[in-house]
Amino acid sequence: MSQTWSLHPQLMQDTVNIGDLPLSRVAVIKDANYPWLLLVPRRPNVSDLIDLSEIEQAQLTTEINRVAVALKAITKADKLNIAALGNVVPQLHVHIIARRKTDAAWPRPVWGVVPPLDHDPQELDAFIAALRRRVWLA
Amino acid sequence: MSQTWSLHPQLMQDTVNIGDLPLSRVAVIKDANYPWLLLVPRRPNVSDLIDLSEIEQAQLTTEINRVAVALKAITKADKLNIAALGNVVPQLHVHIIARRKTDAAWPRPVWGVVPPLDHDPQELDAFIAALRRRVWLA
Repeated sequence: MSQTWSLHPQLMQDTVNIGDLPLSRVAVIKDANYPWLLLVPRRPNVSDLIDLSEIEQAQLTTEINRVAVALKAITKADKLNIAALGNVVPQLHVHIIARRKTDAAWPRPVWGVVPPLDHDPQELDAFIAALRRRVWLA
Repeated sequence: MSQTWSLHPQLMQDTVNIGDLPLSRVAVIKDANYPWLLLVPRRPNVSDLIDLSEIEQAQLTTEINRVAVALKAITKADKLNIAALGNVVPQLHVHIIARRKTDAAWPRPVWGVVPPLDHDPQELDAFIAALRRRVWLA
């Protein structure tokens, strides 16, 4: 049991950092098949949503809404998928995924359907810049 | 666009009703592979979490916590999976699934891995009774 929070090594490897909200780290999953974000509450030893206090849960809900609204506006997605699973990586993390009816996994959930696809670096930079403007500056 | 809420016919077919919290209908998915609940906010024309008002989102978070705490206590699950996907049924519904390291899909997400398994009626009655005690009477 650690007393300080740090991003789980597997999540570190799988994501590109965008920035911090009051509770959560925000990151992009390295998979160009879908616009796919992760919110990771910066609290040590938390695995399930119910391990957060009620105040932290309310703050996480606010941050999920803020990021999801931005992601939908930027991508014009058909549907959002929002999920806290964590069967493989036990550190609490919330997936926010913009789904399109034409994407590689539709209508299935994205996990394990097709191998991750590398991002085009310029497209990824533009996506992160657009998110930063909407989430932190709006 | 309907002005009154009713449970989507597919969700009606796939679930057994448990009862209503202030915002959400609570139901069990008819699949004995996993202790699997559904929360469906009783608001018409809502597909994504971000379609709810901020007050409704906060209420939904409270109800998710209440049901998830009860489900974990009853099942002694290893992990909770909480997800709003809705790619197939567009009416907003939140899955709350008790996962065990020995279950049929572990560590994968449950969707589409193994066919649904019929409940034993007495076990289902006992499960629903235990949930009602913890969620509504606690």
